[in-house]
Order: sequence, then structure tokens, then C-alpha cells
Amino acid sequence: MAKDKKKKPMRPKALPPKGFRDYFGTDVVERNSMLSQITEVYHRYGFDPLESPAVETVEALGKFLPDVDRPNAGVFSWQDEDDAWMALRYDLTAPLARVYSQFRNDLPSPYRRYAMGPVWRNEKPGPGRYRQFYQCDADTVGAPSVAADAEICSMLSDTLEAVGIPRGDYLVRVNNRKVLNGVLETMGVKDEAQQADVLRTIDKFDKVGEDGVRQLLGRGRLDASGAYIDGVGLTEMQSAPVIAFLTSKGLDASATLSNLCAAVGGSDVGLQGIAELETIGELMAASGYGSDRVEIDPSIVRGLGYYTGPVYEAELTFEILDNKGRKRQFGSVSGGGRYDDLIKRFTGQDVPATGVSIGVDRLLAALREKGRMTTVAKGPVVVTVMDRDRLVDYQQMVSELRNAGIRAEMYMGNPKNFGNQLKYADKRESPVAVIEGGDEKANGIVQIKDLALGARLSAEIETDEEWKAQPAQIKINRADLVDEVKKMIARAEDVK
Amino acid sequence: MAKDKKKKPMRPKALPPKGFRDYFGTDVVERNSMLSQITEVYHRYGFDPLESPAVETVEALGKFLPDVDRPNAGVFSWQDEDDAWMALRYDLTAPLARVYSQFRNDLPSPYRRYAMGPVWRNEKPGPGRYRQFYQCDADTVGAPSVAADAEICSMLSDTLEAVGIPRGDYLVRVNNRKVLNGVLETMGVKDEAQQADVLRTIDKFDKVGEDGVRQLLGRGRLDASGAYIDGVGLTEMQSAPVIAFLTSKGLDASATLSNLCAAVGGSDVGLQGIAELETIGELMAASGYGSDRVEIDPSIVRGLGYYTGPVYEAELTFEILDNKGRKRQFGSVSGGGRYDDLIKRFTGQDVPATGVSIGVDRLLAALREKGRMTTVAKGPVVVTVMDRDRLVDYQQMVSELRNAGIRAEMYMGNPKNFGNQLKYADKRESPVAVIEGGDEKANGIVQIKDLALGARLSAEIETDEEWKAQPAQIKINRADLVDEVKKMIARAEDVK
Repeated sequence: MAKDKKKKPMRPKALPPKGFRDYFGTDVVERNSMLSQITEVYHRYGFDPLESPAVETVEALGKFLPDVDRPNAGVFSWQDEDDAWMALRYDLTAPLARVYSQFRNDLPSPYRRYAMGPVWRNEKPGPGRYRQFYQCDADTVGAPSVAADAEICSMLSDTLEAVGIPRGDYLVRVNNRKVLNGVLETMGVKDEAQQADVLRTIDKFDKVGEDGVRQLLGRGRLDASGAYIDGVGLTEMQSAPVIAFLTSKGLDASATLSNLCAAVGGSDVGLQGIAELETIGELMAASGYGSDRVEIDPSIVRGLGYYTGPVYEAELTFEILDNKGRKRQFGSVSGGGRYDDLIKRFTGQDVPATGVSIGVDRLLAALREKGRMTTVAKGPVVVTVMDRDRLVDYQQMVSELRNAGIRAEMYMGNPKNFGNQLKYADKRESPVAVIEGGDEKANGIVQIKDLALGARLSAEIETDEEWKAQPAQIKINRADLVDEVKKMIARAEDVK
Repeated sequence: MAKDKKKKPMRPKALPPKGFRDYFGTDVVERNSMLSQITEVYHRYGFDPLESPAVETVEALGKFLPDVDRPNAGVFSWQDEDDAWMALRYDLTAPLARVYSQFRNDLPSPYRRYAMGPVWRNEKPGPGRYRQFYQCDADTVGAPSVAADAEICSMLSDTLEAVGIPRGDYLVRVNNRKVLNGVLETMGVKDEAQQADVLRTIDKFDKVGEDGVRQLLGRGRLDASGAYIDGVGLTEMQSAPVIAFLTSKGLDASATLSNLCAAVGGSDVGLQGIAELETIGELMAASGYGSDRVEIDPSIVRGLGYYTGPVYEAELTFEILDNKGRKRQFGSVSGGGRYDDLIKRFTGQDVPATGVSIGVDRLLAALREKGRMTTVAKGPVVVTVMDRDRLVDYQQMVSELRNAGIRAEMYMGNPKNFGNQLKYADKRESPVAVIEGGDEKANGIVQIKDLALGARLSAEIETDEEWKAQPAQIKINRADLVDEVKKMIARAEDVK
């Protein structure tokens, strides 16, 4: 019987859904401050803000099969009363395609917008992997010229420096899908499935290296676990352009470009891609972005299905220790490229577009890793409650402090235990506590206590006499409250 | 056959789900700027930010029946892979109760947090009624004293003034649920259903007036449509305290309080409520918040189920014209109160809490109504493309302008039609367009055009000669680009 009762717990669990988390205090402040640094750069580059809803129709988000009973692969989706499927957005690009298609007659052309906000992924959560996270995007829709791509590369560079990543600690790498298509053309690989296999293999270059790619393009390869991975089945001659492509990075941009030329042979699309990379390089140089900030890198592939031209990625190049204590580069915090087909889904017309997305949480993590987030949580001045029938007096002090622009509050808990009030002030990282007992009130004075100094001193002081003589707590005239608190806060900041 | 084909349209509709909308440019900027004004006040009052996820478990959100197959009354909800129900939060208070219960051992006590962000309601959308909207809340959890309530009233007042509602155009009204309970006690109404009927009737006071309430508490009343509304069935004597309560507002707070005393008779809970209102009044007065900002108003009832003590509401008192052209007060933009039971759901322990929620979109609408949103959308300087093979030159100008902190961009559309470039600049509300053809390039000059002035002049100018002589477009040395553009922008701003 007792068991039966336990089956239905009376109290709900105080937990968020799996893979979701809360952000407190400084975390929120730091992210907001980073978002405003990013949007300041986006704004300077001429982009305008757009905020679309968190919810879209599944139809508009696309990518899902209409005949699947519950089209929720990767997204959180549900049916409305009238049976229409809705879903939480999984990125900010799909909503942009919907918005642009809906309002294209009223929007300026090109349409340049930035957007920031959470996106949701219905994926298996893991350590550090959450199902809601922030993105901050900028896109130009209706811009055929690669000048729009070049601009995004310089904007990425400016943005990283604006949030506090110094030059030398990051690199924006650019490639072009057309060059890849040229390589495929030169190889004579026309079968789409085989093309996909080749692209997947290229994506493994970072892990398996030149020899690995050569084996995987040919007969196959024994991987580290001892399993044999079947190869794509190409001849050495067919594979040669891929190897040439992957190893084409030269000492400078012009060396890389001429190596790429060799890799694409006579392919028109390949040569067009290389010409575009060259233009991007010229535009970057003209704007003063050298190879210490932006470089052509043939190993950048990115989201194979989606992009149709230049692709770019911002990588943080400094080393961190991974979970297992091994050094590794921090890696990518942002990426994007040209996607000319997304809007066509809605309108039937070709609309060239290019854009970038910054992984806000990853970038924040990087800045914390580097110790560049120095926001000091500054708690409020806490006016303590000595006599609970004199709340009016304490509230008056709080008002005076606030009116002078000082963050302040009266202690709002049960005032019975005075120790709890000081503990509260410590936990809030308050700079100053204000104390006024009956005697002080009668004499027109109040005591103010420098809490940071007090904590340091209390570690050193041993006797009651010393405690009383210590300068962390001083008596002041009630009339001088605001001025004296200001002085104490300023002193505390100097010490820091 | 043709009909059959039409059944399955190939293209998705470019529309958001019903009841959702997009926010462009200035709308986003204005809301963000208002949110930061609000949070600046919340911060000064000592509240810390909290950001909880958009998604909670249905269990934690509460209010839903566990035996309903699809517990989505009023919320957007769906089942996770493991059959657990999740939902989009419908306010910011339910998530706070979950967060506080989860982290109560680590959080300072009292816990004072502010939160802002969208909330979602699965309600029938209507004109101006959206299913996603912003709230901005502040709450103190673990504060038994009504000083916490008083503080929220003064904070509301400061917040409204900070965002641009002048004193005299708003009023924060306070009441106390305990006084209401005292009235019910005095009436001898103990049946819960009848109590609810009485409370519902009180809520109609604004609409039907004193006589209407008297009738509705008694036998009933013929309403405007001619329908007869059954009454609660109380005697005149039983109704008397309600009427006394509703008409107890006096010329000043002390008159109101003594009228209320008469209305609650000897009820302990009623007298306690009045004493609390008295304390709130004293604290407000001590902080300098007079009856021109905060007043006791017995007609404020608010969300009957939820509140257990003081309740408050911020109303904008200026008049606007409604849909039918009739004058009416703008009405409530914010409300809140003391809710001592929400956290008990999770913890089983009494945790006193009080807080406020600002309806951000309504407040924004009010400020626009009053013409107090004067954000001038300032578009980027547009560097036009005269020769498409000199993108590098134009990009260089853009970089110089950006490096000088000027919002600027190169025209990114197809440059063939130069008129389209100037139309684009106009649509973006650009202050200045930069033009450099081949001749100018050869002579080291560029032309810059004051677009606002140009638009004004073009309305007045009739001949080509006049057009050429007009000062909206001037020739400058290429080397002076940044300085001259700065001057032109400054001039344009002076004219405004």
C-alpha cells in the first residue's frame, strides 16, 4: 500500500528538462556584454537587426520529410490544434529564408540583417552539450558578388578582436565549394553517391592525413581500432587531384592559388572558384586584412550539402587542455558561407545569399579559458536591519544610496539573526554593509563596513581588541552616508 | 489531373505560424534599449540576472492535470523521446520557482533575481495579440517582510520614469489580498464557491459600478445586452462590507485605511492586511514616493488564485483612442504581488516571495503612442559601385570609414543600374552616398551626396542646371573622405 502511494509523487521534481540549463548572474551579464560587442561590429558593417519568433512551421523550416508521422528528427516539434506541425528553430538561417521570402517586396535589396538568440536542437545531451544555445548571425541576401563574402571575413576578424581575442590567437580560413566541384570534375567522378563519398573522405583529412585519404579514396584502410574501412575504389590517377587539392596550401595566397589551379586542371567551375578566392584575397588586402588574420585554406569544407560558393570558418589557434589533459587547439567558433538555394525553396527564384554564424557559447567559453572575462560581480551595498521596527529608517538610507546611483538594498530576510545578514552580504559580494543600531541612531551616526577588507583582516586578527580597532568598520555621521559609502567602494576597487 | 497536382504544393508557404510575428530594425533596437533601461533600474535595486531555458518540464510548470492525455491547455507542449512532457514557459515566475527550489542551498537568501525574455501562450491569436511576447520580471524569494513589496512599488515607479513615462502619466496602485479575505470573513461567506463568486463580482466593479455590484451580489442584474445575470444571492447586509470595501478610497492614504478598517470589521486577517498596507505607505513616504506615484486602491484585485498578500499594478493614466475612436486610459502595463505558495509545490516548505512582471510589448506600445520613441534609424553610408572592376577601391573607402567608427557598406547588389543603388541607399535611410567614377578616380576626387538634403531639394528643383548646382552633392579630395563624410553626417543631424 505504501508503495502504491509512492508511485505518484505529490511534488514535482525541481529540475529542467534533460540537456537544458540555467544561467546565473555573471554568466548572463558576460553573454549580454559579448552580444552587444558583436552587434556593435555588425551594425558598423551596415547590418540591421531582425528578430523572428522561436517557433516556425515545420514546412518553412524544411529539411523534414512530410510523410514522416512525427517529423522531429533533430528538432523539437508538435502539432497545433489544427494539426499543423510547428517546431522550435534549429538555426537562424532557415527563419531568415522564410522572412526574406515573405517580405521581399518591402525589404531593401540586398537585405542585410543580423540576428541573435537561442536555437534548439533535439539531440542527445552530453557533457557541455546543451539543447538550447545562442547564435549570432549576419547575412546578406541578394548579393551576387564575392565582395559580400570577403566583407564577412573581415567582419569576423573585427568581431573576434572586439570581444577580446587578440590578433595571432585566431585565423579566418576561406575556401570555395566551386574549387571542390572542379576537383570532382577533373577526377571524372560523376556519380552523386561517389561524389558524396569523396567529400566525406576529404572531410577526414584533418584526422587521417594525406596517406589516409589516399588509402580511403582507393581500396580502403585499417583504422586505429583495427577495423577495415572500405575505400571509395578510385584509381591512383583519379585520386591525384584530391591529394593535390588537399596539399595545395602554399607559403602565401598566390602560391596556394597556383597549386589549386593545378589541382582543378581545366575545370571551368574550378577555375571560377579560384578566381573568386583571388578576388576575396585582393579585397581583404585592400582593406588591410593580411594573412595573419584571413587566409585561404583548402582543407575547410563545412556543411557539405548547403553551400554553393565561398565557405569560411573562424578558428581560435591557441592551445587548451582537453578533458584528458592533452593539448589541442581551441578550434572553430564561427563559420558560414554562400548558400544560393535556400530562398529558392520558397520563391522559385535564384537569390544569392551569404552569411556567418557565431557560436556564442563556445566563444564565451574560449574567452573564459583565456582569462579574458574579468567582469567582477559587484553586489549591492546591504543596509542591515538592527531594529525591525525601524524599517523606515533603513529604507530611507537605501533610497539615498540608490538616488546617488549606488546599487543598494535593505536586508529583506528575517532580521533576527544578525550574523545571517552579514553572511548574506558576503554571498552577494557586497562591497559595503551599513549598520545602525539604537545607540548609533540616538547619536546621529551609522557604521559602515568594508566587507572585502573585513574578510582579509579577519583571517589575520586574533583578539577582540584588535577586531574592534581594525579599520574595516568605521563610524560616520548619518548625514555623510552617501559620500562615505562612495569613498569606501572606491577604496575597495583600488585595492583590487 | 491538374487539380491533383495542385493538392501538394511544391513550395513551402513563407509565413510564420499563426499568432507569431517578426520584428525588424528599429523595433528590435527600441525594445533592447528599453530592456536595458529597465534592467539598469533592477540592477540598482540589487537584483541579479537569471536566464532559465525556454523549455521546462510540464511537471515543473505545474497548473496542468497529469491525467489529461495532452496537457496543453494554454501552453505549447510536446512529448520527449522518453515520453516526458515538455512545454514552452508561459511566464517567468514558474521557472523561478523551479530554479529556486533546485538551487536553494547555494543561492543567497533572500534570492533576488530579475529575468527578461519571451514567454509563449497557446491561445487563440487576435489583432495585436501574439503567442510569443516579452516579459521583464523581478522577484525577491525568501522575504517575509512587506518591505519587499514596498520596494517593488518604488522600483516600478522608477522603472516607468527611466523608460520615459513622466510622473503624472502613471500610477502604481497597491492593494492587499488579506483585506479582501477580511471582507469575506466579515460577510460570513465561508463556502468556497460563493467566495469565488464574490471575488469575480468585485473584479467587475470597474465596469458595472457600485449599483451593479450591489445587484450582482444580490438577486442579479439585467446587463447591457438585455440578458439577465443571476446574482450571488446575498442579503443587503451581507453585501454591505463589499460595497464599503470597494468605495473605501479616500482623499489620502489614511482616509482610505480608516475606511478599510470599517469594511473588514473585526476580522484579524483583514486588520493584518490593513496594517501591511499602512507599513507599505510609510516605507514609500520615507523613500519619497508620494501619492502622485504610488497609492492604495481597493479596486485592484489581480489574478485571484495566486496571490496571498499585497498586490500591485502599474497603470498608465493618459488617454488614448481605442479601435472605435473612443477615449480610454491606456491601462495596466505591469503587475505583481506576494505569492507565498508557489515554491511550496516543490519543497513542501513555506517560502515567502513577491515580485513584479512588466509587459514589455505593451509598455513599448504606450511609449510609441506618446511619441516618446524617437530613435532615428540611421542607415549606413553607402559607397556605390560605378566600375564593377574596381571593387577593391570601393572596399578600401568602406574600410576607412568603418575604421573611423562610421557605419558604412559597399553596395552589394548587382551594380548595373546605378539608380537602384541610390534607391537602395534611400530605403536604408543612409545619410550619405559616396560616388567615384573613372574620371573622378583619375583626378583623385570622389563625390559625396547628402541623401536627406537631396530628397528635400529634388522636390523643389526643376531644371538640370539647378540640379547640378545644388549643394546636396559635392566633390571632395579622395584623401579627405572620412573628414568630409563626418561633416556631412553632422550637418544632416543638425538639420533634424
